[in-house]
Amino acid sequence: MNFVALAGGVGGAKLADGLAQILHPEDLTIVVNTGDDFEHLGLTICPDLDTVCYTLAGLANPETGWGRADETFHALENIEKLGGETWFRLGDKDLATHIERTRRLREGQTLSQITCDFCRAWSVKHTILPMSDDAVRTIVDTEECGELAFQEYFVHRRCEPRVKGFRFAGLESAKPAPGILEALGKADAVVICSSNPWVSIDPILAVLDLSPTPLRPPSPPLPGKGGIEGLGRVVAVSPIIGGRTVKGPAAKMYAELGIQPSALAVARHYGSRLTHFVLDRVDQIQATEVENIGIKTLVTNTIMRTPEDRRRLAQDVLNFIQTL
Amino acid sequence: MNFVALAGGVGGAKLADGLAQILHPEDLTIVVNTGDDFEHLGLTICPDLDTVCYTLAGLANPETGWGRADETFHALENIEKLGGETWFRLGDKDLATHIERTRRLREGQTLSQITCDFCRAWSVKHTILPMSDDAVRTIVDTEECGELAFQEYFVHRRCEPRVKGFRFAGLESAKPAPGILEALGKADAVVICSSNPWVSIDPILAVLDLSPTPLRPPSPPLPGKGGIEGLGRVVAVSPIIGGRTVKGPAAKMYAELGIQPSALAVARHYGSRLTHFVLDRVDQIQATEVENIGIKTLVTNTIMRTPEDRRRLAQDVLNFIQTL
Repeated sequence: MNFVALAGGVGGAKLADGLAQILHPEDLTIVVNTGDDFEHLGLTICPDLDTVCYTLAGLANPETGWGRADETFHALENIEKLGGETWFRLGDKDLATHIERTRRLREGQTLSQITCDFCRAWSVKHTILPMSDDAVRTIVDTEECGELAFQEYFVHRRCEPRVKGFRFAGLESAKPAPGILEALGKADAVVICSSNPWVSIDPILAVLDLSPTPLRPPSPPLPGKGGIEGLGRVVAVSPIIGGRTVKGPAAKMYAELGIQPSALAVARHYGSRLTHFVLDRVDQIQATEVENIGIKTLVTNTIMRTPEDRRRLAQDVLNFIQTL
Repeated sequence: MNFVALAGGVGGAKLADGLAQILHPEDLTIVVNTGDDFEHLGLTICPDLDTVCYTLAGLANPETGWGRADETFHALENIEKLGGETWFRLGDKDLATHIERTRRLREGQTLSQITCDFCRAWSVKHTILPMSDDAVRTIVDTEECGELAFQEYFVHRRCEPRVKGFRFAGLESAKPAPGILEALGKADAVVICSSNPWVSIDPILAVLDLSPTPLRPPSPPLPGKGGIEGLGRVVAVSPIIGGRTVKGPAAKMYAELGIQPSALAVARHYGSRLTHFVLDRVDQIQATEVENIGIKTLVTNTIMRTPEDRRRLAQDVLNFIQTL
């Protein structure tokens, strides 16, 4: 079977890595959120894309999930001495990625070409695609500060302002990156990784919705290669476990938007896009309600502490959506 | 007395440092060549300016004379893995300078403003000015490769191509940086440091010559504050010692241009701009010939191995030009 995975940063990267441990490179395409991308210190930084690439390359910092392992911060320490901004923690190895990417973007290369080259250099065998080569920027509307660029909200203000809503600037003119529609066309299933629905997955879905893709809601299940055997499936793994997240502000966002944060809320969020939904054992009681809105459920352990956890959860997800 | 020093990279930076060890900050302005500046990896790099600043700040690598002490190259090692260019050795601490400078230039700040801010951050008390806030780029015309951008010739091709000539692109529209003409106006003497005449000092003189400055040749000695006491003086220290240079291609350039490399050749190079000239003991025999073209000479030890050597040579130069 052939799969497309949609992923944001740390949590999504872990599940994408689990899928990559199991699936052949030709059987998996990973589409990554670029709504978090921003310009900082004159460099174009793509946090989610880098997290997914570093994770699959085995280069990610195992403590934080983002950034590089065995990192130093000599450049940033000296930028600080010169009065430059240091709230976004850029390590020396990580800087190489941003410097070389920015140089190539200015030369006219596309983000997807550059990502493909970088993955080859890092010996990443699976295809990782940015959701778009066009700039889409997630804007967080907040009670206290009005509209904030995503990293301004997420890193600089540590998700403290209360969220009122989101918009994706540049969406109107953004096209899915080359290869995404082809990958969706031949995919038997789409895996929505355990990422933040509001700011990691919604930007990807928004870009895909603007295009003639099978993911536009409300819609019947994703058409596959044809026939009952290839019926398309869309499975999401809940990033909310016991009303909380392992990392990141998804639960806080649900609460601030007046929705009780829960696995059920995530299933409702994606709604008719989903055919399958995976939730944690601690949320087992919500499985029936999800089934009641017409979505098959799998209850399993969704916490990924080790690379083996990633592989086990990925295998559970694959077994689940391969069941007729 | 008040002084302006003109300097290029490593050799000039050492003498400028010697002068700064002796003179009060208000009595010395250092004007630095920016003809070597270039765009690399998307960053604006100013090698001579950085060498002078790092040297005066006590941050320079004592082994090489350029770059930072206790430097690491983690970013560059990773740029190399991504297929980027690494022939110009940018360390992690040094990168901070280029990243923050490039960001500020793009914001619209001038190179002289930025240099002033950086010097304050690095606790450099003396004024260091780029020769111009406008881009002037030294182009080396070569036998084998035609015209080469300076760093392409100097670092990438290790000064191997035979030199036919030089030009300074952008010179027509370049103005001296703010503060230079004022500093020259109140200076009692100009010190041309022991830098490469062709590619470190000539670009500065060319920028100054285009302006209503007292350095335009052929001219009488620099007019000072008025009266015999304040008679302007221009002293150069020969970078050529025993027909060779301590560092860099100046001697090779003279030879390739058909001129025997020697202290005398340097004195002739600056010609009627000079009132005073300092040459090494090994070149004592050339002193009479320099005197014969109307330039006073001082023969001393001009090699600067230690910070004390810099101070001693600077003191010799100052004593020399303060002698009536």
